[in-house]
Amino acid sequence: MQSLKERIQQEGQNLGGGILKVDGFVNHQVDAVLMDQAGAEFAKRFADVNASRILTAEISGIAPAVFTGMHMNLPVVYARKHKPITMPDQVFLTLAPSHTKGRTVELIVSPEYLAHGEKVLIIDDFLASGNTIIGLVRLAQTAGAQVVGIGALIEKTFEGGREKLASLDIPIHALVSIDHMDQDEGGDIRFAD
Amino acid sequence: MQSLKERIQQEGQNLGGGILKVDGFVNHQVDAVLMDQAGAEFAKRFADVNASRILTAEISGIAPAVFTGMHMNLPVVYARKHKPITMPDQVFLTLAPSHTKGRTVELIVSPEYLAHGEKVLIIDDFLASGNTIIGLVRLAQTAGAQVVGIGALIEKTFEGGREKLASLDIPIHALVSIDHMDQDEGGDIRFAD
Repeated sequence: MQSLKERIQQEGQNLGGGILKVDGFVNHQVDAVLMDQAGAEFAKRFADVNASRILTAEISGIAPAVFTGMHMNLPVVYARKHKPITMPDQVFLTLAPSHTKGRTVELIVSPEYLAHGEKVLIIDDFLASGNTIIGLVRLAQTAGAQVVGIGALIEKTFEGGREKLASLDIPIHALVSIDHMDQDEGGDIRFAD
Repeated sequence: MQSLKERIQQEGQNLGGGILKVDGFVNHQVDAVLMDQAGAEFAKRFADVNASRILTAEISGIAPAVFTGMHMNLPVVYARKHKPITMPDQVFLTLAPSHTKGRTVELIVSPEYLAHGEKVLIIDDFLASGNTIIGLVRLAQTAGAQVVGIGALIEKTFEGGREKLASLDIPIHALVSIDHMDQDEGGDIRFAD
């Protein structure tokens, strides 16, 4: 997606150690018009997977996921990292290591909103090591649902997430792919396309 | 907003103690089409306040805020509850007591995205005790910004938030107002309008 790529070129910052700062338009501050375009693009790319529900993880997956849900007219479920008091006692819970947080986070979904036989489209902001998305896949499978597609705004192809997801044999789309980032702060960011 | 009111009537659950469960369409699971309608409605009601930025709090404020941002063509900033590694060391931080969490939460905004002289429209899912929104007002004021409007999907008028915000003398709009909830689980939910 050219508009997203240009935005990363203009404003994205390489903080070193593989960390890409995009919090001026993806997380913390959201460019809602850009996210709406991304949602429309995901809807086009996943038009044929027959998804019945979109699944993402709080917090930064929410914006791209809800615009995709709007364009596909599908409900969007975001896995919580802390169980709120409104959730029943029996939940689906999995653990996912978080690279940027330096610790393991919980991903929790209520069985009310993820049911046996559903066809789940996973949308997130990043596909990097794939840990969060693999956690979401595991949650969906535990619920007896089938994952039919995976979409990410930005893929860091050099972190190997796509390879870990290959065995699912489903469409995986990233709107922008980055295949190299210098390890040093302020270093080069190289796009795959 | 009639469609939101009807959805609460159909699916909202009184969990007792003033807690309204709407996690099938507002938080946890999001009805993106309904949130888009809510965003359009906020855009209409706040068309004349000349906002330059929308401010909300993670997590459940994000969906209504990003659709409002899309309809108003404004950037959306969500205050973080934990400082991510992509944020600079110097931040705006305030504390807000959370009724549903039973503890105080931090609200953190980077000075990169909240500047002196901005006109801020605050959008959140609930206006209840007003604590979160007052925290957001304080953040904006600390940054030297001016709050020009406050919008919430659902107001619980019996928790007094609107009175606490009255001294700001700005437009406050809730899309649905609830003026009474029985203290017992499963009890009556009464709408003001």
